[in-house]
Amino acid sequence: MKEFPGVFHVYDTTLRDGAQQEGLRLTGSDKLRIARMLDELGVGFIEGGWPGANPSDTAFFAAAHRELELRNAVLTAFGSTRRPGMEAAEDPLVQALVDANTEVVCIVAKSHDEHVFRALKTTLEENLAMVRDTVTHLRGQGKRVFVDCEHYFDGYRANPEYALAVVAEAANAGAEVVVLCDTNGGMLPAWVGGIVAQTAHVGVNLGVHCHNDTGCAVANTLAAVDAGVVHVQGTVNGHGERTGNADLITVAADLQLKYAWPVLPEGSLADATRVAHGVAGVTNVAVSGRQPYVGLSAFTHKAGLHASAIKVDSNLYQHIDPVLVGNDMRMLVSDMAGRANIQIKGEELGYDLADRDLAARITDRVKTAEMAGYSYESADASFELLIRDELGLSREFFEVVSWRVLTSNVVSAEGDSEAVVKVRVNGMVESLVGEGLGPLNALDVALRRALASAYPKVNDLELIDYRVRILDQGHGTDAIVRTLIDTTDGERTWTTVGVGTNVIEASWEALHEAYRWGLDVLLARSDR
Amino acid sequence: MKEFPGVFHVYDTTLRDGAQQEGLRLTGSDKLRIARMLDELGVGFIEGGWPGANPSDTAFFAAAHRELELRNAVLTAFGSTRRPGMEAAEDPLVQALVDANTEVVCIVAKSHDEHVFRALKTTLEENLAMVRDTVTHLRGQGKRVFVDCEHYFDGYRANPEYALAVVAEAANAGAEVVVLCDTNGGMLPAWVGGIVAQTAHVGVNLGVHCHNDTGCAVANTLAAVDAGVVHVQGTVNGHGERTGNADLITVAADLQLKYAWPVLPEGSLADATRVAHGVAGVTNVAVSGRQPYVGLSAFTHKAGLHASAIKVDSNLYQHIDPVLVGNDMRMLVSDMAGRANIQIKGEELGYDLADRDLAARITDRVKTAEMAGYSYESADASFELLIRDELGLSREFFEVVSWRVLTSNVVSAEGDSEAVVKVRVNGMVESLVGEGLGPLNALDVALRRALASAYPKVNDLELIDYRVRILDQGHGTDAIVRTLIDTTDGERTWTTVGVGTNVIEASWEALHEAYRWGLDVLLARSDR
Repeated sequence: MKEFPGVFHVYDTTLRDGAQQEGLRLTGSDKLRIARMLDELGVGFIEGGWPGANPSDTAFFAAAHRELELRNAVLTAFGSTRRPGMEAAEDPLVQALVDANTEVVCIVAKSHDEHVFRALKTTLEENLAMVRDTVTHLRGQGKRVFVDCEHYFDGYRANPEYALAVVAEAANAGAEVVVLCDTNGGMLPAWVGGIVAQTAHVGVNLGVHCHNDTGCAVANTLAAVDAGVVHVQGTVNGHGERTGNADLITVAADLQLKYAWPVLPEGSLADATRVAHGVAGVTNVAVSGRQPYVGLSAFTHKAGLHASAIKVDSNLYQHIDPVLVGNDMRMLVSDMAGRANIQIKGEELGYDLADRDLAARITDRVKTAEMAGYSYESADASFELLIRDELGLSREFFEVVSWRVLTSNVVSAEGDSEAVVKVRVNGMVESLVGEGLGPLNALDVALRRALASAYPKVNDLELIDYRVRILDQGHGTDAIVRTLIDTTDGERTWTTVGVGTNVIEASWEALHEAYRWGLDVLLARSDR
Repeated sequence: MKEFPGVFHVYDTTLRDGAQQEGLRLTGSDKLRIARMLDELGVGFIEGGWPGANPSDTAFFAAAHRELELRNAVLTAFGSTRRPGMEAAEDPLVQALVDANTEVVCIVAKSHDEHVFRALKTTLEENLAMVRDTVTHLRGQGKRVFVDCEHYFDGYRANPEYALAVVAEAANAGAEVVVLCDTNGGMLPAWVGGIVAQTAHVGVNLGVHCHNDTGCAVANTLAAVDAGVVHVQGTVNGHGERTGNADLITVAADLQLKYAWPVLPEGSLADATRVAHGVAGVTNVAVSGRQPYVGLSAFTHKAGLHASAIKVDSNLYQHIDPVLVGNDMRMLVSDMAGRANIQIKGEELGYDLADRDLAARITDRVKTAEMAGYSYESADASFELLIRDELGLSREFFEVVSWRVLTSNVVSAEGDSEAVVKVRVNGMVESLVGEGLGPLNALDVALRRALASAYPKVNDLELIDYRVRILDQGHGTDAIVRTLIDTTDGERTWTTVGVGTNVIEASWEALHEAYRWGLDVLLARSDR
């Protein structure tokens, strides 16, 4: 393994290149929240946007200077070389870059001859002058300057002399790092490694910026590192245009855990899972369950084959200790698994399921429910209720007699939906009305009111997330729906599942389970 | 670039190892449907499951022989070496493998000494005997035998002599291919390449099986190919346990398009996008928009920066022609983009938006709507309605006076929901009731009835898909919700979007737009 080069840049471009992803829109406050998380993760540089290119990016830098106190990261403004045939000092976009008032600026330069001709519509010489002038001007303004060579690898393959000339021009003008970009993402690791090696003789610090169009963004980044780059660009959760950018957390974890390079501040890699999911909470693009290191499933074992062996030694079955990246090993409840999984999962929840018949009965119930569309893989609370039923531990706190909910286009101060929930509590029938925005909200209010006189602690419960999945596609509006509801009492959060032929019915079931668990497990426990 | 080795195996394990993914459950008929698609894609081998390990896998092979007519692929049964201390012929799992009646079997063998000791609880010698006996027995039964060396790379790093001894034992006993497995997924490409090269001297055809725990499954597979393997295993859409397996379509596309190796039958790579999405339709795990080659966003351009340049020459901005993998280039409507994108998108839909003021007005409307939570990136029909409104082309076919919908726990033959929709059509107020399973279904029935006397063609419209996204997490049940509805008239399918503070309100809006588009664009057009 290569030795750590000493100086090494982990450069995040989630806020700029990551925001190019289809479906992603970040407000100014979103960007500030993400920047704080990136700083906690310990990245060296946060590329905040392109000042002057659009008003919100310009505003972001003003807000960032006012509101961010970065401990690890250096805020960086992104821009471009001056326009053809214009002085750098006269180009308003170059001026906007200066005005963003950051210590570091990163400018994109063309390095592929065809792009100079056909997109920029200028000469190769003028493009070199644009690089030279812009770097020189920005250096004169006291900036540290990084230069992104756009389409570098494709450009090198088409015209290596010219691509190298752009790198040399940037270096000679005072660029601190010249970043080689696989803008179209079509490279393979062997190609990236070869071209970086052939560029190294220019004698400037090199960086790399990869996209995932061949499924190799992370590996291309590592191949560039092996060939000598000391600066890696990427985005949290691999956000970005088309197939996305190199996932910066995966790259950093690979370097830290596989190369044993201290690329992040000590201890901060353990925030990786929290940061990945925190950023997802802002971008509202869920972290893939299969995402390396930080995905919900990344250290999850399902197969019956492995479950028994994992009991023996979990390290035989995972490539790193998930604690290093703030993740956990999980065993799944699933029809793929046998009794062994169910027993391990039960133990995690504090139930002794060593009895084979008992475990087999619970496994059968899980299988039957999963056939109907339930999934207990994330709905631990519903799984615990199932175990408690089978163990005879459940107390019936209330019985649902009926419910109905009306939603209309008429919105009042209380919302647009009205629910009536009738329950039997301690032999008394309680029928209460709830109003709210949306049917689930109205049902939640009504159920809570119906239970509150007997169980005042239900007023502490709050529904904090609600997810809907259509299970059976292609059947129009009467498909089977699974809903998951996350509920909290301010300390613990639990997840319940409901399934039904319509979203309201499925939501009601998950809501009902959420209150059952809250009463049967959580509140009952705290009453003791 | 390496030369094509002549014989090369593309080996799919979606039905076996892919099915280990969290949340994935495949029925027997699901597996048959996926197997047909894999055969159309032209993979060489389809690993169908582990006969004997569970009844459904055993049943699958019987059904596959009865119902599948494979043109390209060879059906393969997966199993294990015999148990310690037992004759191969006496091991019921080995017998089940024989009984699966496939030309090829693939057996997993331990190749990491610690796993032999601690998971298998036997000696290194006995494990070698298990490999030898099982391969010999299966060869004696007329099978072609592939051997998966589990934990090979970790095993090689711990005890290279033993790992190599397992490969040699399998080869000497008659294995056709010995597959080196990165079972825990912790490898990097340079490590894989080095270990494969050091294993090549055994002199047997080698294969590779990678997982994505370091984000390098595809690149690790390619590194093994560069080092000499002639057999690659993977799964469609990268399904699999933890972070998943190598995505077999990405690997095949890389080999076919970047190495120029004919690893799939001629022309069949153009089915890749269709097969990836077809498999997703069965697994009900959506293809990531960012998935290489086949994702919805894989050839999608959003940035205003590029949009104008893409007009000049699209090949400057994409690494391959998307037609080669059955995908399309798309331009997005988004607030990130400027007028150029809106104009290109408008042209795609057949509207001339060359007028700058007009394009600017539409861009403003899109930006305002996107701020409120709308997204036109997939809702082309809603975007077209917006253009038509701005161009003054929309006709008002009906006006909504009011709507309401009641859902309850009482399910009748007509469903559990009852809607009343009041519309004004040609000056007449129509108020109709609809019943259905779920509120959207009831609203759809009521709206269709209210419009049917004036516009009988609405009876041809069918809602075929319905997706819900909670936009603003962390606000419990009164978050903002975006819904997308796909509607068809049997020939065309269109997508509309609705946003609201509750799922019913948002669904109603998308439904309303679906009917508006159907009347304004589609039916109006066919009337001419």
